[in-house]
Amino acid sequence: MQSTEQPRLAPRARAVEPFHVMRLLERAKTLEAEGRSIIHLEVGEPDFPTPEPILAAARAALEDGAVHYTPAAGLPQLRERLSRYYAERYGASVEADRILITPGASGAIQLVFQALLEPGDEVLICDPSYPCYRQVLRLLGVEPRAVAVDADDDFQLSAARAEAAWSPRVRALIVASPANPSGTLLGREQLAELHALCRARGAALIVDEIYQGLVYDAPDHSALELAEDVYVINSFSKYFGMTGWRLGWLAAPQAAVEVMERMAQNLFIAPNTPAQHAALAAFAPATLEILERRRACFRERRDALLDGLRRLGFGIDGEPKGAFYLYARLPDWVGVDSMQFATTMLEEVGVAATPGHDFGCHGAERHVRFAYTCDLPVIDEALGRIDRFLVQCRSR
Amino acid sequence: MQSTEQPRLAPRARAVEPFHVMRLLERAKTLEAEGRSIIHLEVGEPDFPTPEPILAAARAALEDGAVHYTPAAGLPQLRERLSRYYAERYGASVEADRILITPGASGAIQLVFQALLEPGDEVLICDPSYPCYRQVLRLLGVEPRAVAVDADDDFQLSAARAEAAWSPRVRALIVASPANPSGTLLGREQLAELHALCRARGAALIVDEIYQGLVYDAPDHSALELAEDVYVINSFSKYFGMTGWRLGWLAAPQAAVEVMERMAQNLFIAPNTPAQHAALAAFAPATLEILERRRACFRERRDALLDGLRRLGFGIDGEPKGAFYLYARLPDWVGVDSMQFATTMLEEVGVAATPGHDFGCHGAERHVRFAYTCDLPVIDEALGRIDRFLVQCRSR
Repeated sequence: MQSTEQPRLAPRARAVEPFHVMRLLERAKTLEAEGRSIIHLEVGEPDFPTPEPILAAARAALEDGAVHYTPAAGLPQLRERLSRYYAERYGASVEADRILITPGASGAIQLVFQALLEPGDEVLICDPSYPCYRQVLRLLGVEPRAVAVDADDDFQLSAARAEAAWSPRVRALIVASPANPSGTLLGREQLAELHALCRARGAALIVDEIYQGLVYDAPDHSALELAEDVYVINSFSKYFGMTGWRLGWLAAPQAAVEVMERMAQNLFIAPNTPAQHAALAAFAPATLEILERRRACFRERRDALLDGLRRLGFGIDGEPKGAFYLYARLPDWVGVDSMQFATTMLEEVGVAATPGHDFGCHGAERHVRFAYTCDLPVIDEALGRIDRFLVQCRSR
Repeated sequence: MQSTEQPRLAPRARAVEPFHVMRLLERAKTLEAEGRSIIHLEVGEPDFPTPEPILAAARAALEDGAVHYTPAAGLPQLRERLSRYYAERYGASVEADRILITPGASGAIQLVFQALLEPGDEVLICDPSYPCYRQVLRLLGVEPRAVAVDADDDFQLSAARAEAAWSPRVRALIVASPANPSGTLLGREQLAELHALCRARGAALIVDEIYQGLVYDAPDHSALELAEDVYVINSFSKYFGMTGWRLGWLAAPQAAVEVMERMAQNLFIAPNTPAQHAALAAFAPATLEILERRRACFRERRDALLDGLRRLGFGIDGEPKGAFYLYARLPDWVGVDSMQFATTMLEEVGVAATPGHDFGCHGAERHVRFAYTCDLPVIDEALGRIDRFLVQCRSR
C-alpha cells in the first residue's frame, strides 16, 4: 500500500455542503450511547413502518423471483397504476408513459435537473427550501437563484416575487407543496400564476410533491391538474411510508419523456425491482386505509406540537397544513442563533431539531425545524423539555 | 389540459444516445408476442436468480422492519463486510470507511465522475467499452477521449496507448477488468503501468470491477491490491446475482471519502435498505458455494460459445477470460455491417445479439457482442441457428 497525495477533487464537489443536522445527529447518537434519552424531532422520515400490504407484496415478489432488471422507466404496471391514481384521486389526466419510476425522489431530481439545465443556467428556488436542490444544482454548474420567502407569503413563492427575482438566465423554477421545512401548501391560484409566468418566459415549472397526501384541514392537490407542461417530482417515501425502499417518480410532458428515458437508462439502468413490485400494493384499499389513519395521527401531532410551541413563545405564523414539519421562529428574547440554540437544546435537555441553516440563509438564524415524526406522548415530553430549556435560557 | 409547446431540453440531454440493443429488444418482444422463439444472447444480466441465502436475508430484514433510511454511505456492517472480503479474497487492505455503498454501480459511476470532473475536463476511455461511461460523462460536460483498443491489445488499454492519446485536459482514465464487451482482463503489470502514468500526470485511475469474480482460467484480482489512490467501481449485480436490487459500491482514497459522502447525501439520500441487509448474506459460505458453481457454469458456457462461434468463422482473438460476453468479429465474407447483421439474424433465425455500435466506433461495424447468459442447450440451439443464418447469408 503506497501513501497517497491529496486527490484532485473537482471544486464543485468540494463545495457541496454537509447537512448541519448530520453533526447534531452524530452528537445525539453519542449522547444516546452514553445512556442519555434523546427525543428526535430532527428526522425527515415517518416513524411508521412500511404498511403490511406493501410488505406482503414485497415478500410475494421475492417468492416469484422478481429480482431482475425492469425497464429503465419502471414496471409498466406501476406506471399504469400511478396514472390511475392521478385520475381517481386528483382528477388529473396523466398518461402512464408520462410517468418515469426513479430511484427515490432523488433520482427524479437528478433526471429533471440534468434534462432541463446546462451550466450557466439559473433556477429560482425558495429560501428556505429542501437543501438538496441547491447542492445538486451547483454540482451541475447551475446557479440556484434564491428568493426569500417568509411567513407573510406562507413560505411559498408568489408570481410577483418570482418575477421580481427573474434574470435572463433563469430556465426553471422549483417549488414544493407541501413544502419542506415549512409544511405550507401552495394555493392553486398561486400555482397557476407561477405556471403562466414560466410559460410566458419559456421556463420550466418543477413542482416537488414528495409530501403529497400528507395534508391536513385542506384539500390535497397535484400540479398535474393544472397543465401537462409541468414537471412533478414525487416519491413513495413519505405518504406511502417507504423511505428505505428508495422509490420515486417523475411526471413529465409527453415530449420530454423519450429523452428522459434514455437518460434514465444511462444514469440508473432501472429502479429497484422488489420495491417496484411492493409499491404496486401502495394503492390497495387496505393500504390506503392504513395511510389515512396515519394521516389522522400526523394531524393530531401537528396540532399538539403547533399549540405547544406557540404557547412556549415560538412564532409559527404561516399555515403548516402539510408534510410533518413546523418551521418555528425562536422567541424574540432568545439571544443565540438557531444553530447554537439547537446544539445547546440537544446537550441540555436532549431534544434534537434542525437549525434553519440547512434550508438556506433567509431568516435561517432565527428558525428551527421541528418534525412531528414521533408519538403524541413523546411530543408532550419534548414540549416539557423545551419549556425547561427556555427557562434555563432566560435565567442566564 | 392545455396543449404544450416543445419543452426546452438541455442540448446535452438531447445528445444522450439510445442503446441500439433496446430497439432489437423491442423487436424481439414483438416477435415473441407473435409466437416466435427468440434466443436472447444480447442481455447483460445473469439468468440465475438471486441466491437463496441472500433472499432469506432480505425476508428476515423485512420481518425485522429494516425499511427506514440508512446512512448515505450505507450500512456500517456492510462496509465492514466488504472490507473483510477484500482482505480475505484479494489480500487487499481497504478500510471500511473507504467503501461507499451506492445505488448500483450506476450510482458509483455518478459519484466518482461528479467528484473528480468538471466541464471541459477529458477522460480517457477504451473504444469499445460500456456505453454509459461516455453518455454520463457528456451529460456532465466532460469529453470522453476514446482510445481504440482491439484484439491485439486484448481489448485493454496499455500505458503506451494511453500516453499517446493523452491531452493536457485529461483528468482521469477509466478501464474495466473484466471488460464489457470483450470479457478480457487487464493484467496486473499493465494496470501498474497505467497507475504509474496516472500518478505521474496527476490524473485519477478509475477501475470498473463490476464483473469481478466472474473470471475463468485466470487469477481474480482487484486494482485495490495495487494502491490506495485508485477509484474502484463494483456491484452486487453480476457475480452476486443481484441485478434488480440496484446495489453497488465505490472504493475511494481516504482523503476523497468525506466529500463523496456529502455528495451521496445530496444525490441519493441512501441506497435501498432491504437490499443492503440482503447483501450482508452475499459473503456467507453457502452463498459463495452457489456463486462458485455458477461461475463453473459460466465457464462451460463460455467454452461452448467460444468454440462454436470460432467454428462458424467468427473472429475472437482476444482472451475472453471473464464477465459473460464474447466480442465476435463477423466472418470477413459477411457483406453487411454488424447492425444490419444483428437485425437480420433476429428476424430470420430468432437470435438476438448486441451490435458493436453500442460500445463505440472502433471496429463497431464488424463486431457483435454475444452474452452467455443462458443454458448450454440454448447456446447449442443458438449456434445451430446462427449456422443456418450464415448459410442463408452466403447463398445471397
